[in-house]
Amino acid sequence: MSIKKLLFTPGPLTTSRTVKEAMLEDVGSRDHSFVSAVKEIGSELMRIGHISKEEGYECVIMQGSGTFGIESVVSSVVKKNDVLLVLVNGAYGERIVKMAVIHQLNHQVLRFEEDAIVTPEATRKYLQAHPEVTHVACIHSETTTGLFNPIKEIGAECKKQNAIFIVDAMSSFGGIELDIKENQIDFLVSSSNKCIEGVPGFAFVLCKNAELAKAKGQARSLSLDLYDQWKGLETNGQFRFTPPTLSVMAFRQALKELDSEGGISAREKRYRANKNVLDKGMQELGFAQYLDKEIQGYIITSFLYPEDPNFNFDRFYNKLNDRGFVIYPGKLSKANAFRIGNIGQIFPEDVKALITAIKEVLTEEKIVMRVTA
Amino acid sequence: MSIKKLLFTPGPLTTSRTVKEAMLEDVGSRDHSFVSAVKEIGSELMRIGHISKEEGYECVIMQGSGTFGIESVVSSVVKKNDVLLVLVNGAYGERIVKMAVIHQLNHQVLRFEEDAIVTPEATRKYLQAHPEVTHVACIHSETTTGLFNPIKEIGAECKKQNAIFIVDAMSSFGGIELDIKENQIDFLVSSSNKCIEGVPGFAFVLCKNAELAKAKGQARSLSLDLYDQWKGLETNGQFRFTPPTLSVMAFRQALKELDSEGGISAREKRYRANKNVLDKGMQELGFAQYLDKEIQGYIITSFLYPEDPNFNFDRFYNKLNDRGFVIYPGKLSKANAFRIGNIGQIFPEDVKALITAIKEVLTEEKIVMRVTA
Repeated sequence: MSIKKLLFTPGPLTTSRTVKEAMLEDVGSRDHSFVSAVKEIGSELMRIGHISKEEGYECVIMQGSGTFGIESVVSSVVKKNDVLLVLVNGAYGERIVKMAVIHQLNHQVLRFEEDAIVTPEATRKYLQAHPEVTHVACIHSETTTGLFNPIKEIGAECKKQNAIFIVDAMSSFGGIELDIKENQIDFLVSSSNKCIEGVPGFAFVLCKNAELAKAKGQARSLSLDLYDQWKGLETNGQFRFTPPTLSVMAFRQALKELDSEGGISAREKRYRANKNVLDKGMQELGFAQYLDKEIQGYIITSFLYPEDPNFNFDRFYNKLNDRGFVIYPGKLSKANAFRIGNIGQIFPEDVKALITAIKEVLTEEKIVMRVTA
Repeated sequence: MSIKKLLFTPGPLTTSRTVKEAMLEDVGSRDHSFVSAVKEIGSELMRIGHISKEEGYECVIMQGSGTFGIESVVSSVVKKNDVLLVLVNGAYGERIVKMAVIHQLNHQVLRFEEDAIVTPEATRKYLQAHPEVTHVACIHSETTTGLFNPIKEIGAECKKQNAIFIVDAMSSFGGIELDIKENQIDFLVSSSNKCIEGVPGFAFVLCKNAELAKAKGQARSLSLDLYDQWKGLETNGQFRFTPPTLSVMAFRQALKELDSEGGISAREKRYRANKNVLDKGMQELGFAQYLDKEIQGYIITSFLYPEDPNFNFDRFYNKLNDRGFVIYPGKLSKANAFRIGNIGQIFPEDVKALITAIKEVLTEEKIVMRVTA
C-alpha cells in the first residue's frame, strides 16, 4: 500500500486534493471553456504581480518546465547585437549562462559565491564599466541554496542604464509579495508547480508588452518562440501547440485557492511559519544551515550533512520517504547538503511531523549530532 | 452545471476516469516511485513499438507538446553538414520545414498536394537525384487531413540511401500496429495525449541508440536537447528539468489500460469500428469527406462544409458542444472543412450519439444537405 506523501521539495510540491480534482474532467484544447480558463489565469497572474494589460503588461504561458520558460525568454528577447549580463550565484544562474552559450548570445557573467547574494553595488560597478550591456538576468530565489537576491535594488541598477531586467522568480512568485512594476522587471518567469501550488506542466512569463513586441521574429526555436506563443494566444485565445490542458485547469483552481487563503500575504505568512518551525526543530536536532540567516529565504533551506560517518543520505532519504516525507537532495558545488522546502500545501504541523520523523531516523541510524553554537 | 464532454478531436482527447484518477496523488520528481514509473513507461512504449533496449533502441520523454518532441529530434540530430529532406503533404510537414528554417539546417522539401499521399516512387526519384540527403522526415498520420502516408515503403527508400528516417507518428502511434524495426524508423515521435489515451504534458521519442549517441553536443537549445535529456534519464533515472509528474503517472495508467483492452490490435479495431460508424452516419446525413477513401486513415476525418449558406461553423460547433460533443475545426489550406476524430475513450455508441446530435443541429439550423453520389 502506498501512503500519502508530503513533498518538502522546491516543486513539484504537495497540492490540495481539490487542485488535483480539477483534472478529473477532459477538456478540449481549442474549446471555449479552456480558452476562457487560460484568459482568467493570465489576468489573475497579472493581478497578483500588481500589473495589468491596461498598464502594458502581458502573460504568456509556455508548455514544459520552468527552464523552458526561461529559455523562451532568453532565446527570444536577446537580439543578435544585444549583450546579456547574467548575475550568477548558483546553479540556476549557471543554467542561464548555458543557454546563452548554446544560443550564441553576446553575454557576460558576473559571478558571486554560492553562499553570497548578488549585490546591487557590484552590479552597479559592473554595469558602469560595461555600458554595452542591454539585458540583465538574475535569479530571485536561488533554489540551489535557498537565498533571496535583492531584485528590487538590482532592478534599480539595471534601469539606471536602461537595461532590460529578466527575473527568474521560479520558486518565489506567489509565495512573496512582489510588485513587478516597483521592481522594474521587464520579464518575470515562474512555473505552475511552485508557490501558486499547481501541478507541473508549464511555465508562465509576465512581461512588458513593449519589450515582448520587440521579440517578433527573433526566437531561436519554434517551440520556445515567446512572441509567437503570445500572438497565438492573443489572436484566438488558443495555443499554437497542444497545451497541458489539465495542468492548466488545476492551476486555475490553485489560483482560486490562493485567493481564498487570503492572497499572497497570507501564503507568505504560512510559508514563514513553516520555515520558523523548520529552523527551530532542525537546530534542536543539531543540524547546521549552509547559508547565513540574513540572506536565507523561506522557500527552501540547505542543511549540511551531519559529520557523523553513520550518516548516509540515501538511507536517510529512504527512511523519511517510507514515513511519507519526501525531502530533496542538495545541489551545492562545494558542500554536502540536503534541502527541505516549505512551500506547497504544507502547514506548521506537517513540518513538526517531519522534524519528529527526522529525529526517529537519526536515532534509528545511530547518528550522533554535534550541537553547533 | 457542466456536462461531461466527449472529445472528437485529435487530442487532447477523452481519457478514462481511472487514467485521470492516477493524478490524484502528488509525487516527487526525483522520488523513486516516479523514477520507476518513467522506466516502466519507456520499456512498455518500446515493447508496443516492437523494439527493446537490448536491440539498441531507447525511449526519451520530452516535456511540452508533441511539437516540442519533433523539434527536439530535428534540432538535435541533424548536424551542421547534414541535409534534411522533409516530405510534406500537410500542416505538420510544413511545421518541420519551419523548424529547419529557424535552426538554419541544410534542408530540402518535397511537397505533395494536401489530398495526396507521399509516394515512395517520388521519394525514390528525389533521393536518387539528391544523394546529399542524410535525413528524411515524414508524417505518418497527417492530422491536417487525416491521411496515412505509407511509411514502410518510404522507410525502405530512405534506407537504400542510408538516410536516417524520422517519423512523426503523433496521432497514430498506439492506435495502429507499427513495428519500428520493420518500418526502418530511426526516430519516431508521438505524444502523451494521443492514441495511448493519456493526458497532455509530454512527447516521447523512440529511437536507435547509435543514432541518438551521434546527437551529443549537437542540440540548438538547452531545453530540447534530446541527447542530454536521454543522458540525464540514463544516469539516475531523473529528468534534467521538472517533468510533468502527474501526466506521467496518468500515462503509466493509460499504458496499463491499453494492455487490458487487448493491446494495439484491439485498440485499432475499436478505432476502425468508430470510423465505420462515423463514415456511415455522416454519409447518410449528406456530408462529403475531403479525402479519397483509399488514402483516408481512421484516426481523424475532414468533412467539407455543407453548401447550404445556413451552415455556420461556429454555431454548429457550439450547438454540438452544448450537447457534450466537442468536434475540431479544419486546417486545410484550400477547402473549408471541419474534423472529427475517433480516438480516445470513444466507442461506436458514442459516435452514434454524435451523429444523432449532428442531425438535430442540422434540423435546428435548417441546413439542407445535398446528398452526394
